[in-house]
Amino acid sequence: MKIRIIVTLKPGVLDPQGKAIQHALGSLGFAGVADVRAGKLFEIDVADDTDDAAIDAMCRQLLANTVIENYRIERA
Amino acid sequence: MKIRIIVTLKPGVLDPQGKAIQHALGSLGFAGVADVRAGKLFEIDVADDTDDAAIDAMCRQLLANTVIENYRIERA
Repeated sequence: MKIRIIVTLKPGVLDPQGKAIQHALGSLGFAGVADVRAGKLFEIDVADDTDDAAIDAMCRQLLANTVIENYRIERA
Repeated sequence: MKIRIIVTLKPGVLDPQGKAIQHALGSLGFAGVADVRAGKLFEIDVADDTDDAAIDAMCRQLLANTVIENYRIERA
């Protein structure tokens, strides 16, 4: 079973990577870029009987830093 | 206008980060994790009149390494 986990910085948390990308896009000549937020995506192939609690625990223990990041679980 | 760009490694390209995560999940006691693929997510706030060609160019020139990565554009 394919699971997709999207990890993004919490609103308000400074995103230096996003800022760097935003400036780079500007210097490449792309106008009108107001904001860029960078995040992570994990596509995990797990056994079909894996329950939501286990996937949630994977996120909390390893994939996301829940102090500064939010995560969302999507079933592919 | 919010645009979401998802960048993933092309199939067949070795993903050492994904492998490391897979092993870490195993050592944390999570069974049944067959594969993990790590990718990137960019949430970009662009002007409403930004056309598809410009967004595609942003991906090709900066956000994705098209030799080893695929990218997908999603309008939020």
